[in-house]
Parts: sequence; C-alpha cells; structure tokens
Amino acid sequence: MKRISFRDVGLIYTFDSRNDPVAHVAAGDTVVLDVEDAFSGKITAKALAEHAEDVPFGNPIVGPIFVEGADVGNTLSVFIKDIRPATGRGITYLSQFTANYLTSVPIFEFMKVELPAHPRICKIENELIYFSDKITIPYRPMIGTIGVTPLPEAESISSVLLPGRHGGNMDIPDISRQSTVFFPIFQKGALLYMGDAHAAQGDGEISGEAIEMPAEITVELNVIKEKINWPRIETDEELMSVATTSAARGLEDAIRTSFMDLSMWMERKYDINRFDALVLLSQVGKIRIGNLWTAVAKIEKKYLE
Amino acid sequence: MKRISFRDVGLIYTFDSRNDPVAHVAAGDTVVLDVEDAFSGKITAKALAEHAEDVPFGNPIVGPIFVEGADVGNTLSVFIKDIRPATGRGITYLSQFTANYLTSVPIFEFMKVELPAHPRICKIENELIYFSDKITIPYRPMIGTIGVTPLPEAESISSVLLPGRHGGNMDIPDISRQSTVFFPIFQKGALLYMGDAHAAQGDGEISGEAIEMPAEITVELNVIKEKINWPRIETDEELMSVATTSAARGLEDAIRTSFMDLSMWMERKYDINRFDALVLLSQVGKIRIGNLWTAVAKIEKKYLE
Amino acid sequence: MKRISFRDVGLIYTFDSRNDPVAHVAAGDTVVLDVEDAFSGKITAKALAEHAEDVPFGNPIVGPIFVEGADVGNTLSVFIKDIRPATGRGITYLSQFTANYLTSVPIFEFMKVELPAHPRICKIENELIYFSDKITIPYRPMIGTIGVTPLPEAESISSVLLPGRHGGNMDIPDISRQSTVFFPIFQKGALLYMGDAHAAQGDGEISGEAIEMPAEITVELNVIKEKINWPRIETDEELMSVATTSAARGLEDAIRTSFMDLSMWMERKYDINRFDALVLLSQVGKIRIGNLWTAVAKIEKKYLE
Amino acid sequence: MKRISFRDVGLIYTFDSRNDPVAHVAAGDTVVLDVEDAFSGKITAKALAEHAEDVPFGNPIVGPIFVEGADVGNTLSVFIKDIRPATGRGITYLSQFTANYLTSVPIFEFMKVELPAHPRICKIENELIYFSDKITIPYRPMIGTIGVTPLPEAESISSVLLPGRHGGNMDIPDISRQSTVFFPIFQKGALLYMGDAHAAQGDGEISGEAIEMPAEITVELNVIKEKINWPRIETDEELMSVATTSAARGLEDAIRTSFMDLSMWMERKYDINRFDALVLLSQVGKIRIGNLWTAVAKIEKKYLE
Repeated sequence: MKRISFRDVGLIYTFDSRNDPVAHVAAGDTVVLDVEDAFSGKITAKALAEHAEDVPFGNPIVGPIFVEGADVGNTLSVFIKDIRPATGRGITYLSQFTANYLTSVPIFEFMKVELPAHPRICKIENELIYFSDKITIPYRPMIGTIGVTPLPEAESISSVLLPGRHGGNMDIPDISRQSTVFFPIFQKGALLYMGDAHAAQGDGEISGEAIEMPAEITVELNVIKEKINWPRIETDEELMSVATTSAARGLEDAIRTSFMDLSMWMERKYDINRFDALVLLSQVGKIRIGNLWTAVAKIEKKYLE
Repeated sequence: MKRISFRDVGLIYTFDSRNDPVAHVAAGDTVVLDVEDAFSGKITAKALAEHAEDVPFGNPIVGPIFVEGADVGNTLSVFIKDIRPATGRGITYLSQFTANYLTSVPIFEFMKVELPAHPRICKIENELIYFSDKITIPYRPMIGTIGVTPLPEAESISSVLLPGRHGGNMDIPDISRQSTVFFPIFQKGALLYMGDAHAAQGDGEISGEAIEMPAEITVELNVIKEKINWPRIETDEELMSVATTSAARGLEDAIRTSFMDLSMWMERKYDINRFDALVLLSQVGKIRIGNLWTAVAKIEKKYLE
Repeated sequence: MKRISFRDVGLIYTFDSRNDPVAHVAAGDTVVLDVEDAFSGKITAKALAEHAEDVPFGNPIVGPIFVEGADVGNTLSVFIKDIRPATGRGITYLSQFTANYLTSVPIFEFMKVELPAHPRICKIENELIYFSDKITIPYRPMIGTIGVTPLPEAESISSVLLPGRHGGNMDIPDISRQSTVFFPIFQKGALLYMGDAHAAQGDGEISGEAIEMPAEITVELNVIKEKINWPRIETDEELMSVATTSAARGLEDAIRTSFMDLSMWMERKYDINRFDALVLLSQVGKIRIGNLWTAVAKIEKKYLE
Repeated sequence: MKRISFRDVGLIYTFDSRNDPVAHVAAGDTVVLDVEDAFSGKITAKALAEHAEDVPFGNPIVGPIFVEGADVGNTLSVFIKDIRPATGRGITYLSQFTANYLTSVPIFEFMKVELPAHPRICKIENELIYFSDKITIPYRPMIGTIGVTPLPEAESISSVLLPGRHGGNMDIPDISRQSTVFFPIFQKGALLYMGDAHAAQGDGEISGEAIEMPAEITVELNVIKEKINWPRIETDEELMSVATTSAARGLEDAIRTSFMDLSMWMERKYDINRFDALVLLSQVGKIRIGNLWTAVAKIEKKYLE
C-alpha cells in the first residue's frame, strides 16, 4: 500500500498539471496520504492571531497522484476508507478571512472595525472533539479540499478560493468516511490532489474555518469509462450531485444546476425520465450547502431501487 | 376549540391588515384551520395542465386571526399540534412556474420551448404518499405559507412570491408537526394567516410544487413579550433562525443573515457570546434551504444545554 | 389641465388598487402632480438624523390616476413633460437605510457600529444644485418611483422596496424630462402612481438617497393597445427595457432579462430577428443601473432606423 | 521602441508567473504588442460554427512583460496610446458560451435546445465597423483582457473566466485609447499580459462575444510606489474603480465594492472624506458594467478639482 506524506513531497497550494506526480498508482490501488492542516501547520500555540502572518496561504494539498488508465473524458472514483487525526488536536478561530466571508463587501475596511479572533485548540480523542470545557462535538471527519487537475486552459486553480467542475475547496461534510467521490477527468492520469481535513464542520462553514487538523487519509482509486460534468458523491444511502458558484453563478443557480445534474443522473441510472426525476426531487430531494459556494443536491437511493 | 374553514371565510392571496379578522383568540388558545390546497382546489383531474388556467393565483391562505394581547414589537408563537390531509390525496406537476423557477431569466420564452407537465395525483394514507406505482414517500406534512401581517408601509404581501420578516411563503419542511414558529409582530393582534400545506416537500422545492394538499391544521397561539427581527423555529431538538432573500439579498447573504441572527439568539439565551457562537456554528451548524429564497440556520440544543 | 396635489389627496406608501382614484383622465390628457419628497417632508433642518424617526416610511406617492380606456393587457405610456423643484432645495444624508444598502447582511448590528449621517440641504436654482461650498451639480431631475397597480394577487406593493413589472421604486435617471415610460397594465384604468422626485441621482444611488425634493411633475398619459411584460422607456435617441431583481433573480439575471426583452422589442419593431438583435446589442448596447435592484438595457435608435 | 508579437512568443491562456518574460522594459518605456483575436485566429471563414471546435480556448494573451523596478505592493500604470486593427476585420457570433452566458444553469442541455450561431465577419475601416449591409458601428477599440500575474498562491488564472484583483478578462469599454489602467502588483516585475482586443463592445457583452479582432496595441508602462487593492482606470475626465464578482460576490456586491474603493480613492486624492465622497457618488456617480462579472464605479473629475 502506497503512503504519501506532505513531509516528503511538500506543500502545494494549487491544482496544477505542471507539478510532477508524487505517485503513480493503478486503478484499484489504495493509497494513504498524510496531509498538513489548513494553516500549513504554522499555528501551534493558543495565541493564534499572532501567528496568522506565518501562514503562507490556506489549504495546502498533497498531490498530484497519477492514476494509470485515467483518460480525458473518464471519471475518477475516490472511495474514502478512513480519515484519522494525525496529532490528536484541531484548531479554529475567526480571521480576516471570516470578515470577508461574513460579507462580500469591504465594510470592515471602510468602517475601520476588526473582528475578534476567538481562537480554540481542541483535543480530538475517541471520536470526540473537545470544543470547550462545556461543549463536546462528535468527530465527523471530512476532506475539505479534494479534486483533480482542471482543464489545461486554467492550468492551476487555488486550493482555497475556487471550487469548480474539478472539485477543489468544496468543504462538503459528506466527503467523509465510507463515501465515494466522482470527478470528471480533464488531464491524463486524473492528477488527484487533496488536503484541508476537518475533524468536524457545519454546513456553510460560516466562520470560514472548521476544526482544522493534520490527518491521515486512506483512499481507493478507480477509473470509470463514463463522462460526468460535475463532481458527484455516493454513499450506501444517497446519490449527490455537486455544483459550485462562480463569477457568474450565485448559490441559487448552483442549487438549480446540481438538481438538474442529479435529475439527469437518475435518468441514466434508473428507469425514470429527467422530468419525473425533477418532480420526485421536489418532494424528497435534500440540499447540502458545503461552503457558501458549493451546493449539493441529494436523494436517498431507496426511492429509486 | 375554535374552528375556521376556508369554506366559510373564503380564499385570500395576500397578507393584508385591511382584511377583517376571521377570528379573535386569546393567548393560549388552540385553533383548527381548514385550508385549501395551493391550486385553490381547481385542479381535480389527471389532466392538470388543462386546468391550470382555472387557478386564480397560488397559495390561498386563511386569516387573519387576531390574537388578543399581541402588540407591535412582541413575538407571536405558533405551536403546530397537527397537520392532517383533508381529502386523502395531494397533487403535483411541472408548470410555467417551474420554468421560471429553474432559471430566473425568460429563456423559455426567448427560445420558444415549453416544459412538459408530468402531473401526478397521489393518494395519502397511513402516513404514506403514493407517488407512483413503484415509489412511496413518507408523509411529512408541513405548512408552506404562514406568517403575520407585515409592516403597514407594505400593507399586503403576496402569499406566493415574497417571504420576509413577516414569514410568508417560506416552504420550510421544519414547519411541521410539533414545531413552534415565532414571528415578529408588526400590527396589533399579530394577524396570522396560513395555508399551502404540503404532504411532503424536498429542500428547495425545486419544481416549485410539493405534494400540495388541502389540510386541517391545529395550532396553539401565544404571545411573548420580546422582540425578534426574523422568524425563528424551535423543536425539542433544534433552534433555527430564518432569513429570506429579497430584491437586494441573494441566498448567500440570506444564509449569512440567518447565522448572525442565530448567533445573537444563542448569545441572549445561553451563556455564550455571539463570536464564540459563530465559531461553534461553523462546526455544528446546519443549513436548511426552504424554497430558493428562504434560508434556515440551525443548531441542536444539546450543544448548548 | 388637471392638477393633483399631495396636500389634497394625502401621502400613500403602496401601489394599491383599493385606494380610490384621485383623478380620472382621458387618454391624451396632461396632468400636473405635486409630490412630496421621499422623507414625507419631515426633515426640515440641518440636523437630519435627529428627525429621522419622524419619517413614517420612505417614498410617499400620489395616486392612483384612473386612465379611461386603459384595459388589462394594454400598455400605459407616460410622457414626462417637466419636473420642477417645488421648494428650491433638496436633501440627502446617510441613514440606517444606507447601512443596509452597503451590505445586505446585518453586519452593522452584529459588530455594533454605526454609519455617520453626513447630512446636506442643497439649494436648487437655475438648473444647478449647490452640493457644498465647492461642489455644484447639474440639475438632472427624475422620477424615482413611478408605476401602475400590480396584479391583484399582490394588491399592494411598497413604494420603497420592491420594483417589478409594475414599475415602482426603480430610481432610473432616464425617467426624466422628455422621456416616455411604458408600463404593462394589470388593472382596469391602469391606476398610475408617482413620487420620490430627485434633483439628481447617480447610477446605483449608492447611499440609498439622492437629492430628494418635493416637485411639480407634468405628464401626458396615453394608452397603447399592445401588451408588454416589463416597463420600457423611450427617448428621441434611445430604446430601453427595464427588468428588476427579485427574491430569486440577482442583478446579473435582471440584466440578462432586460437584454432579452429589448431583443424581442427590436424584433417586433424593426426588421431584425431576436438573435441578430442580441448580437448587435453585444456591440452597442448600454446598461444603466437604477438602484441596485433595477437594470436597464439600452440601444440608440440610430442603429435601427 | 520594443515590439512583441504573438507570432514570436506564442499564444498563452493563463496569467502565470512561471512563464518566462517575453520582454524586460524600464519604467517609462513604450511597448507595441501584436495580439491575436479571442478565437486564436482559428475562425477565418463565414461558416464560423463549423470551425468552433478548432478554437483551443478563448482569449489568448501576450506576455508576461517584466517591468524593471516593479515591486510587490506597488502599482503598475498602463497608458494606452493606441489600439489598431491588424487585419481590417473583426468577427462575432453566438456560441455555446453565449448559451451559458444567457443563463447560468444548464437549461439548454436539460431541455435539449440549441442557440443558432448568427455569425458575422465585419470589415473595419476609417473608424467604422460594417456590422451588416444596413448597420455601421463606430470603431471604439478596447482591450478586453489585461492584467498582471496574480498572487503566487493562485499561480495561474484563466484568461477567459476569472477577472479579479489582478485584472484579467474584465471587458471594460473604458480600457481604450488614451486611458490609463492601474493594477496592484503581486509579483516582482508586475508581469503584465494582454489580449482579446475588441473593435467595439456593448456594456455587459451580452452575447459573450464582441467584434473580436487581432490588433496592434501601443502602451506606456510606469510604476507608482503606492498600494491599491483593485484595478483602477483614469482618463482626462474620469476616475474609475473596478471590482469583480467571484465565487461568493454577486454583481450587487461588486458594485458596492467598487464604490467603496472609489470613495477611499477620493478621500486619499482630494480634500473629501470617504463618507462625503459616498454621498456625492450617490448623486453623480456612474456605473459601467464590463462583462457580467465586472463592475466599474465612476466619477467625473470636474466635481473634485
């Protein structure tokens, strides 16, 4: 079983086809990745805000992994076997990023006000996160940033800001243990990257920071000879289609896009046409908001089987 | 126990302070309302599309109910005891409204294409909805449209298009049996209206239509001498703050607004300040999308008690 | 020539079909309206902020005017002959409304900060506005709020917040002297209202307040036996289609909608199909933003004649 | 005077710091660039649609140009001396890109409809563009895509999709002859790129395509030892601040951001504070929409001098 550690291959901050693969794997292989936390491991003491300037950029990722037989137009499947905390703790706080996240206009700068940091370092043990003396949170680990290398005309995309058809910083809690994530393949070998593990994260990740942790992630990789347009997720119970906002698509349109994709997936996979599928989704569909630029449309498979 | 039927008081399509109250009730009273379905009961055969022109407008509501002792600046609480199907069936289909809902530009008109109707009349029995020969859906009844009369400067607001601080057409599945909904009071007596019952509805109500049914709704009304800014919902397990989109606020900002409101509610109700509350919500908060213009921020109470 | 003054008919804050007409006029008639300023005339001294609580609501309007022969499905044309300042001065300042306008999340409340008022009372004389000792602005009068009574299912719409197919608070600088505004007619008699005159206003009215003035407005009213979907504007030089944002349509989609409407208008009026019209607009079309929820697509008529 | 031609340096589709500079110039130098059209020169016949698959990606750019003395945190100024058509013609048509541009949901795919191409090849001569037999358009040349290399954490940004603080595909008609464009500098040498010349373009570039032409562009480059946050533009008459939409910022917020930036620029440059500046902009400010993800706030300098 192949093991890839950020300590060996370094921290990368973009999904980029020009980086040399850190590993070549065959379809069906299982890989273990050691990923650093979203702060590049630079925040190690309680006084988080003081160290904020040491953080180079957010969300270092490990990769790219070249998957043999993965051709342009295929689909990469990533089955997540496990996500384990590497140091037994996670970190969160309010940052300048939160200020920009609570409102997308520069009102903090215009009004000359600042958000207080409210930092926390949380112990993680026995499937529990110790948020404070009083509050304990279940350990619900997930991969915040995962994706393949985008179309060559956009040869590198930031691991922080721009989720899209390639995946990226989607922050979807369903990308968790025992789920399978599918990506459209834009470059030979798929060139998978991942990082930004969260011990837990709320919908919308409203402060911009989850319980950020270094982690050991175990995944099995496969190639499917079909074409998809957007990332999809499957668990034992659910089918999910992802769509993201972009320069010209707000969250309403991302939701609509994800439901249209899910309708077309249901049409292809089950004996139901896209319009009936849409009518059914209007009754039993669910929406998950990852971060504020990522929408997930869901349906439980029991309705279709 | 007071009973109010649309057969006696008629169908109304706006939240309007100038309509005479259909009932005066005391705080603590329980009221039963018979409400017509969202199609004003005009669609009775399988050939739904043929009858679409008979529908006057969407979402007829029953009201207003004048609650004694409800003053401007107070909060109205509505505890939903039960929602029962009145005819044992519900209806759904794709309509011109769906076309406008899938995209908010007139592309169907511009390209001269039409959406097929795909109608369904579904039997409702023993907590089950018969969607098709093959598909059965759990009965999860909810009130799609519920609210008080808005500020006098906007003396009537459509029961279809414009949810807001007064509530209205929010289409939130959590407004269901055994939940309590809170509304800010803008007019003496609160002047509550409701209608648009759904036997089941998915997040986002992506086709614009749920399983629409006439229903018998039982609620207990109370007045709280506190001020809130937006509707809120409480169940045994969860606290929820609602915020809606508007002419100048997209869904991203409605989500942000609902989380800020929830943070301030947590600050007021529990021993936690608004910034720590925000950090906690970033880990365990949930988002429910009602229809595409209604966001709900949630937290489980177990984290706070 | 009929004259209608707010002093006689009172201040109204909604477009509402249930108000008695203040006048019946024939097609072709000219009417003079005296309208109060957007602050209902309550702000009369330099210390504007102190008096803000005296303002009942924004944008009082005068109407409705019943136009003989105006039937549902027709178009009302309003030719604006003149807009004159009534008192020789106008007022502007920053308000709580500005705070909500600069960002559509409650960040000012959440962070407990306030915007300073920065009030100004400006003399208007000889086609000039005296903004400060140093700065003079050309007098470019316009009608901020003008429209017909909306569809009966939404029997009254606020004169402040919700422009739409009926017009309303659009704040378009092109609704000025010598322009003609067209409205779809939803109620017999059209039921025209107007108010909220501005001595000058920038695109976007970014503080939420223009140079607000009481004014004398002279208009000629006519009925056209055609159907339109959105307000339109025509001057000697330009054709313009209006579309507004709404609960589910952001400014991007309002712009797209206005351009599609303008393409279809060009197709109907000139020897050009809607697709070629769209291609031409991509080269010579202009966009005017009224307030942040009103988009106007324009073309100079010289390209078409 | 240095001359750089795409024929020598090749076509590039990303703003990328890892490409070798095509030229090093001193502050104050004038450079002439030959740029290819937005279709990479692949569309050469009337049957444009047939050749669409030959286009690799949109908007090839020429660069990067390394400017001596340009340090991180400085501002690059680009004075545009001239923009001349290289071949005497320009091309435009409707494409799949237009379909995605008219609506940001996949409704064309979902409904299985297609947009007709409506291609045009237009002669450009004597400051006129021959759009059709009947319609002539003034030659108003502009640079659609121009910018510096972004922050290293996002090492390359597509020349088509993602305008931002670095500039990029902004499609602003004011970036024209005799205007000066300012960019924040994120990388040593500034690393300027440009391409995507338009013979004319309407606001919003609503079909997604302007009159696209290969061009000869002459610019003078300078470095200013000040820091700015967003691109700005200055002409003899106007000051302009640019802000773009992004994954979490719709056009409303881009407009608000551009006006706040302009207010702060006015505060710094003239004897007026940011709040009075905002009040003044509410009276005389203008908005230019470039493409649907680029907003420009403007003021005429005569009001400030």
